[in-house]
Amino acid sequence: MAGNSIGKEFIVTSFGESHGKIIGVIIDGCPPGLQLSEADIQTELDNRIPPQPKIVSARIEKDIAKILSGVFNGFTTGAPICVIVENKEADSADYHKIKNLPRPGHADYTALIKYGGFGDFRGGGRFSGRVTVALVMAGAVAKKLLRKHDVDVLAYTSAIGNVKLERQVTYEEIRKNKYENAVRCPDSSCANEMETAIIEARKQGDSLGGIIEVLIMNVPPGVGEPLFDGLDADIAKALFAVPAVKGIEFGAGFKAAILKGSENNDDFRVRKGEISTLTNNAGGVLGGISTGMPIVARIAIKPTPSIAKKQRTVNLVTMENASISVNGRHDPCIIPKAVPVVESAVAIALIDHMLRAGLMQRIVKKEHE
Amino acid sequence: MAGNSIGKEFIVTSFGESHGKIIGVIIDGCPPGLQLSEADIQTELDNRIPPQPKIVSARIEKDIAKILSGVFNGFTTGAPICVIVENKEADSADYHKIKNLPRPGHADYTALIKYGGFGDFRGGGRFSGRVTVALVMAGAVAKKLLRKHDVDVLAYTSAIGNVKLERQVTYEEIRKNKYENAVRCPDSSCANEMETAIIEARKQGDSLGGIIEVLIMNVPPGVGEPLFDGLDADIAKALFAVPAVKGIEFGAGFKAAILKGSENNDDFRVRKGEISTLTNNAGGVLGGISTGMPIVARIAIKPTPSIAKKQRTVNLVTMENASISVNGRHDPCIIPKAVPVVESAVAIALIDHMLRAGLMQRIVKKEHE
Amino acid sequence: MAGNSIGKEFIVTSFGESHGKIIGVIIDGCPPGLQLSEADIQTELDNRIPPQPKIVSARIEKDIAKILSGVFNGFTTGAPICVIVENKEADSADYHKIKNLPRPGHADYTALIKYGGFGDFRGGGRFSGRVTVALVMAGAVAKKLLRKHDVDVLAYTSAIGNVKLERQVTYEEIRKNKYENAVRCPDSSCANEMETAIIEARKQGDSLGGIIEVLIMNVPPGVGEPLFDGLDADIAKALFAVPAVKGIEFGAGFKAAILKGSENNDDFRVRKGEISTLTNNAGGVLGGISTGMPIVARIAIKPTPSIAKKQRTVNLVTMENASISVNGRHDPCIIPKAVPVVESAVAIALIDHMLRAGLMQRIVKKEHE
Amino acid sequence: MAGNSIGKEFIVTSFGESHGKIIGVIIDGCPPGLQLSEADIQTELDNRIPPQPKIVSARIEKDIAKILSGVFNGFTTGAPICVIVENKEADSADYHKIKNLPRPGHADYTALIKYGGFGDFRGGGRFSGRVTVALVMAGAVAKKLLRKHDVDVLAYTSAIGNVKLERQVTYEEIRKNKYENAVRCPDSSCANEMETAIIEARKQGDSLGGIIEVLIMNVPPGVGEPLFDGLDADIAKALFAVPAVKGIEFGAGFKAAILKGSENNDDFRVRKGEISTLTNNAGGVLGGISTGMPIVARIAIKPTPSIAKKQRTVNLVTMENASISVNGRHDPCIIPKAVPVVESAVAIALIDHMLRAGLMQRIVKKEHE
Repeated sequence: MAGNSIGKEFIVTSFGESHGKIIGVIIDGCPPGLQLSEADIQTELDNRIPPQPKIVSARIEKDIAKILSGVFNGFTTGAPICVIVENKEADSADYHKIKNLPRPGHADYTALIKYGGFGDFRGGGRFSGRVTVALVMAGAVAKKLLRKHDVDVLAYTSAIGNVKLERQVTYEEIRKNKYENAVRCPDSSCANEMETAIIEARKQGDSLGGIIEVLIMNVPPGVGEPLFDGLDADIAKALFAVPAVKGIEFGAGFKAAILKGSENNDDFRVRKGEISTLTNNAGGVLGGISTGMPIVARIAIKPTPSIAKKQRTVNLVTMENASISVNGRHDPCIIPKAVPVVESAVAIALIDHMLRAGLMQRIVKKEHE
Repeated sequence: MAGNSIGKEFIVTSFGESHGKIIGVIIDGCPPGLQLSEADIQTELDNRIPPQPKIVSARIEKDIAKILSGVFNGFTTGAPICVIVENKEADSADYHKIKNLPRPGHADYTALIKYGGFGDFRGGGRFSGRVTVALVMAGAVAKKLLRKHDVDVLAYTSAIGNVKLERQVTYEEIRKNKYENAVRCPDSSCANEMETAIIEARKQGDSLGGIIEVLIMNVPPGVGEPLFDGLDADIAKALFAVPAVKGIEFGAGFKAAILKGSENNDDFRVRKGEISTLTNNAGGVLGGISTGMPIVARIAIKPTPSIAKKQRTVNLVTMENASISVNGRHDPCIIPKAVPVVESAVAIALIDHMLRAGLMQRIVKKEHE
Repeated sequence: MAGNSIGKEFIVTSFGESHGKIIGVIIDGCPPGLQLSEADIQTELDNRIPPQPKIVSARIEKDIAKILSGVFNGFTTGAPICVIVENKEADSADYHKIKNLPRPGHADYTALIKYGGFGDFRGGGRFSGRVTVALVMAGAVAKKLLRKHDVDVLAYTSAIGNVKLERQVTYEEIRKNKYENAVRCPDSSCANEMETAIIEARKQGDSLGGIIEVLIMNVPPGVGEPLFDGLDADIAKALFAVPAVKGIEFGAGFKAAILKGSENNDDFRVRKGEISTLTNNAGGVLGGISTGMPIVARIAIKPTPSIAKKQRTVNLVTMENASISVNGRHDPCIIPKAVPVVESAVAIALIDHMLRAGLMQRIVKKEHE
Repeated sequence: MAGNSIGKEFIVTSFGESHGKIIGVIIDGCPPGLQLSEADIQTELDNRIPPQPKIVSARIEKDIAKILSGVFNGFTTGAPICVIVENKEADSADYHKIKNLPRPGHADYTALIKYGGFGDFRGGGRFSGRVTVALVMAGAVAKKLLRKHDVDVLAYTSAIGNVKLERQVTYEEIRKNKYENAVRCPDSSCANEMETAIIEARKQGDSLGGIIEVLIMNVPPGVGEPLFDGLDADIAKALFAVPAVKGIEFGAGFKAAILKGSENNDDFRVRKGEISTLTNNAGGVLGGISTGMPIVARIAIKPTPSIAKKQRTVNLVTMENASISVNGRHDPCIIPKAVPVVESAVAIALIDHMLRAGLMQRIVKKEHE
């Protein structure tokens, strides 16, 4: 079975279930010498929970990150880093009731087929959005390591349902504004509309999806392996580990399909002795290898499948048609929580490739020496 | 470096350069007992070359597949299968002229950075579309193996530039019609418009991209591993090995981002004792695992970067701005050739997961026993 | 860096340090449906500690196994299984004193070179024998799974220093007697001599090594992959993860080097419709694949490097010659503790190959259904 | 199935059968910029064939190495390197006769079980010693790359049957003398005795095994990963890919089992500002990581299983007892041919770890620049 690890140099292994004892992650391959504390990870975990209770699930447990291994005297040692959070607020009663009624749009049915009924179904078990806590914790380490090389991975909300951020936002705007509002959109008036749309969907017992965009600055050219292990390929693979992702595009993406070659090609220019391109329709990747331009990706997130509205399903025991209304603590829109998760997945894939390319230091120098 | 292999059970390794001696592929992990001949592979290779010289490159060498290992007495043995084609018609003269002028939209520049100038630049070397011959040869084996389990992977053209196949086409239509025309579109009138658009682009010294769609029938539920090794994740990863792919979506894809949960969720129903869904917005995958419904994907292909129109580039030796007009034998639209390549990449990812899931026979029974 | 995981289907990841918070292990790929409790793992952990305080280290902390994930309602779920023990009795004071004096025969020096001084040196950190607790916990799961298929992996002591078990012991004897004495030797009079030798070495401030033998019953023929992934190759690789292993041989092993072909070859015979061999010089493996005969291996274990006797070393700060006498709680002979560790390493490699060969059930049926 | 690739950074894939069209190898991950010609590989291939026809098989086909990819203008490009030799002299008639009579000591029986009768049995197919040609070709590249870093891997014969090289030989002696005689032993008088022993065994219709020793000079300290991916572990794993290997030991090896800690530990000393050890019982590896001292290993090779003497076997069709006398072109002792194969397997494992440790240049500088 397996499937719970990713990476060749920076290897992330996820474990734990939604309503089990813990959610945890192992990072094997982090270079020694990175200053790392539980607070570094806590900051990222806290960013997962938007400060606006109306737009998120009522299950707002404060997750406290604990580092169990791999850090000594405040620095990574080169040994596997294990970080866990305990599950405290899980209320599994509802799940026993709907155990035999697979929720439409969820992995309940496919998990059942796959694991022969032995899977921990409570809260979706391994297929719960809660498992993304592991990604965020690993992402915190990946992002700290990337910042030592001035690489900055930013994800932000660019659409929720029909509300779209139409204008171009700058790197500085995203950096400054994205955590200023509950929906993680760098434009505050657009953010307001998004919040309203989410609250409206919740009232209807319904849910919304949207688009998350990613911007990565300062990736040197030459990152990514040829053919099967392209940087875009591995970023895409990592992103599909984020539940609800249904589509990914780089640069001009699907729009490139309607451009002509002369419109889509990014012409090269020399500026102050440095080569760059005039446009960035490639989104920073050519032939699977970084060009040195910003890496740009857009990710489609489907609406949360758990909704209060009545839906049709089947009773797996009686094999008769049935209906279900998923009550409990569910997010009417997963996007705000998904932003740091997407950022983490991308950071994990990127750092792995930077290490593969030999562009990261194998041992990080101590900061004050 | 590496990066030229894919798969965990059905492991495909690509080798050879555009203007080198051969293009080849190794398949390690094909179960023993599959009846396989060079003709099986030749058929797929022949499908790569559309029968309409106006819409493709003038370099139409007839590639002849030779099996070098892994087949004995007409059946696979379980040992690595090596298949090669020889490169005959390569004309490298033009490439020496533009060696120091990276072509916009191509991997020339990133390859140079990555390989320090040692790479075989002729015809794009490893980054040439010609390397997809290896994918098609491996795909021929993957598809034959899938058909033993009644699984059928179909790719077809759904858009070229602004010409889109708007109506829904059926499985039977695709199966029957896609190789009836040069653009591999199952609708003949749409195909005519596409051909016209390609011829027009060529006249302008320009090129077109488009959309390829994939439909996979009869994948049993339960294929795909959780979290990082989802079936969708690994299909996406394999597809990014096809040059020019810039976006991928499954099922409703980017459209799911604007649907409400109640619209996007696929309700379950029992019909004749079998569970299926009323709609297929998930595109046959939930939680990274197949649902038993058809797997549906859409792939964005950028326009061919090699165009006759003059473009801006840089001279890497003098580090001065320069211009380039890429003459030579180039396809004004790569889509028709890309259709069997996309089909192959998807088949390779799928068979690997079927073997991982334990759903393929480890030894294929002899056909007439 | 990495290197802390092993296996392709039954993937074991080790984490934690000797004097850190915990020692832990993740098992990814255990089929769902195996009945598993903390008691199952505890039994194996308890076997690590011989009941004779004179022959082992004074650090006898009772390790209590806690399952953090992957088990639900008493059965494995197919999700990653995380098991940890807490470190309680670690006394790190001594290690700070000898921090700059690498102990001869230990990994102190190589670890320092590798991790640039960031490694957790206390108690040897990741290179401590204590990390084998993780192997034993994973081995407990592997062995339980193997027993569902009637496969039994047995390790036992066959030599300590110059005391050798000269006579052939039977499977039943090993099974019955090996845990009847402190040195894990199935012959009680030989065991007495071994204990005496260990006590004598301790008195001298010295240590002993020895030989551990492995006998595996009921492995079906056909387990092991060709060429690079032979069953013997992967058992050997797993065994080198056990600290102090310096040599491995299968069947006749080094003795085969002096036999003639006619003496070493194992002739085939049919008995009651079953094929077996008259001898087993191959040790149950031919061409990397199991023959169906018992798998037999011998492992050389070096004497414990930590000894009270004064030894020569260097001061890494002053770069001057120095001397060291390693006091503290050290085993005068690691063999008794190593027996269950060796058994676990072999079981982990074997189950991985049985899963790869398709010879294990992907889902274990519930026991009372 | 799979199993035909090894390595994480320097990935070697073997293909081809004994009596098929070719024996081939792919090397993925060789850094660009290494000067490499077919002659480099040919030299190593020629070393496989001892210049004394009485001691080797009559099948002495001159294998001609052809590079099919990955080399351009005389230098490696960073792309996969494919090298093949054609099989010319295969005479398969004998094998059809004994198809149903598994040869004792060979993989015929286990291959049959594994591949359900579809395997290419001619000449042992994939399990033939001839497949080691692939290892030697990959080893030629590995050794050339290692020499750029002054690392020298030497294998030589130290025992054939009961004839043992008792005295210690120096690096210079091995380097100078090992290819001066047919048995690849650096001591000429010992070599004469070995030749005599082999000729005697052949006369008796029998065969001999022996011991090959490996000495590796100039490996820097810090090569090898912790725990599961130790340098010794991966060298051992690679060596088990050499047919007939039954045992491996490093440094004092099995002798370490009878030494005391005070005898076996290698004391550290500073000499001219460099740290080394006074003895080398560790064989250059501690905790799986190189110490900077020479790496020393001994490998037990069993006698060739193919012998003219009559042996007992079974007829797999009738399932009755039978006898077999293996005529044809067989080596009475495989050791002389195995020496360069062992050297290659070790070199392949070592270069992979040097690349993993970040101690090899990712791009090899041009030689005359």
